[in-house]
Amino acid sequence: MDATPHFADDLVECLRELGHPLCAGLDPHLDLVPPLFRQGTMAPGDPETARAVEVFLREFLHRVAGRVAIVKPQIAFFERLGPEGLAVLARLVKVARGLGLRVLLDAKRGDVGSTAAAYAAAYLGRDAVLPADAMTVNPYLGLDTLEPFLETAADTGRGVFVLVKTSNPGAGDLQDRRLEGGGTLYEALAGELGKRSEALRGERTGYSSLGIVAGATWPGESERLRELLPRSLFLVPGYGAQGAGAEEALRGFVRGPGGSLEGGIVNSSRGLLFPAGSASAGSHAWERAIDDAVDRAVGELREAAR
Amino acid sequence: MDATPHFADDLVECLRELGHPLCAGLDPHLDLVPPLFRQGTMAPGDPETARAVEVFLREFLHRVAGRVAIVKPQIAFFERLGPEGLAVLARLVKVARGLGLRVLLDAKRGDVGSTAAAYAAAYLGRDAVLPADAMTVNPYLGLDTLEPFLETAADTGRGVFVLVKTSNPGAGDLQDRRLEGGGTLYEALAGELGKRSEALRGERTGYSSLGIVAGATWPGESERLRELLPRSLFLVPGYGAQGAGAEEALRGFVRGPGGSLEGGIVNSSRGLLFPAGSASAGSHAWERAIDDAVDRAVGELREAAR
Repeated sequence: MDATPHFADDLVECLRELGHPLCAGLDPHLDLVPPLFRQGTMAPGDPETARAVEVFLREFLHRVAGRVAIVKPQIAFFERLGPEGLAVLARLVKVARGLGLRVLLDAKRGDVGSTAAAYAAAYLGRDAVLPADAMTVNPYLGLDTLEPFLETAADTGRGVFVLVKTSNPGAGDLQDRRLEGGGTLYEALAGELGKRSEALRGERTGYSSLGIVAGATWPGESERLRELLPRSLFLVPGYGAQGAGAEEALRGFVRGPGGSLEGGIVNSSRGLLFPAGSASAGSHAWERAIDDAVDRAVGELREAAR
Repeated sequence: MDATPHFADDLVECLRELGHPLCAGLDPHLDLVPPLFRQGTMAPGDPETARAVEVFLREFLHRVAGRVAIVKPQIAFFERLGPEGLAVLARLVKVARGLGLRVLLDAKRGDVGSTAAAYAAAYLGRDAVLPADAMTVNPYLGLDTLEPFLETAADTGRGVFVLVKTSNPGAGDLQDRRLEGGGTLYEALAGELGKRSEALRGERTGYSSLGIVAGATWPGESERLRELLPRSLFLVPGYGAQGAGAEEALRGFVRGPGGSLEGGIVNSSRGLLFPAGSASAGSHAWERAIDDAVDRAVGELREAAR
């Protein structure tokens, strides 16, 4: 009988083997889907659109399988397509896992007790309708609202990434507020998560399946977050299209046993899905454009991790 | 040609006519669906389950039509059923609107720019796949991430309720943090929203389609929020099953032109959907249990609003 899997242990071992932390984001902006894959009107309500997105992303998954450890579908772009979009996402999750890829569902859910439990069951539970390896959650409602996600993740060996410091320009509006008595809101939140992350630490690598989101666009804050959360995996958005370089993206990482920087994953969505040259008509040109984009990002991140 | 609707104006006029602020929450907890409507295993992945939920809630909508102004489906419970659950929700939204009910989608979405735009388009846009009259959003990522929702709402005449002070026990973990220089995080957020709410004010009632969530469980905080946001509609969860009474629920309301308290809606989910007696076998007993529950809540709220 298999032991329960452990998200952080499994992911970190795979990342060490690959030698880079690149995560491929699946953000199917309809107006950016390359001509090779476009069908019909590409309007959100057109059933052909969901089909086009499915074929496009399935081909993409086949391209990146074995080269990245994990993919991150952004559920908003599938919700935009209606129920059929969610059915496409469910099939793509199966394809990805069948190809040996982990799936981090970027859903940023958060709600009160029994509602949070419904979200956790839907995406992390034993009978999940869309079984992800991990998901992102929003902490604004309070720490009690994170518990159903953490309990479900502990039960099924899956992972949770809590939004702490996001990559967008206005991230600081709430997150950077200075508190009476010192420190910022995001630091106070990280402090609270520290206690909880211990319970989800893996036996093999020591990393916790309670991770956080720490935007590449705020490298100083990522360093601070690492001090507060030494064993949490960081999901780092904002690398590439959003403006941050590889060195900034790895600022919250630490030296692993092999001497390279580790401790999280660095997401690139548009840079990998829609690279320059991928709008060419032929499928060979498209494949090469994706391969080159992955090579480039892997090269940058490996170099920066040395 | 019809003028663009205005969510707050339309809702407030309807609430004044009805004389109470009751909102019926649609939270189909699978284990609470009454025997009358249960089908098959009631497991989340069973297609019969989505069908049972659809029939149950359709009957419920017919029961409450004309007696409440607005219903609030909690999308988590539909997501829990997979793509078919979302298809059921889309059909129920049509039924509700056809019965003259407004639909407030409780989705608590929040994400960075282009992703927030996808959520806004999906639920509030001109070609929405699930066209709600208003939706709830989460502000943790920052004020820039609320803009796509507010812009879409302004364009289509729909509404947005921003989570400010939620009803759960741990709501204060982040929301009540005291800030350097005075005040709390939720007050600072409300202050920022005040500026933005002006742009979405209706011409007929003066209320803004930028509303907030203000839990009935924190009546003192609701009073404070009303000082900061005199023209915002409050969505008040936490009344009934979550423990707060009608008087607490209305604490953030103000005297309207007819002398009664107004300025928001008070949600009851379990208290209306699953009242005592509604588990009886017969359809007449079920109907009476729902009617009684609505009567009771309406009576309490009307009394408290005097």
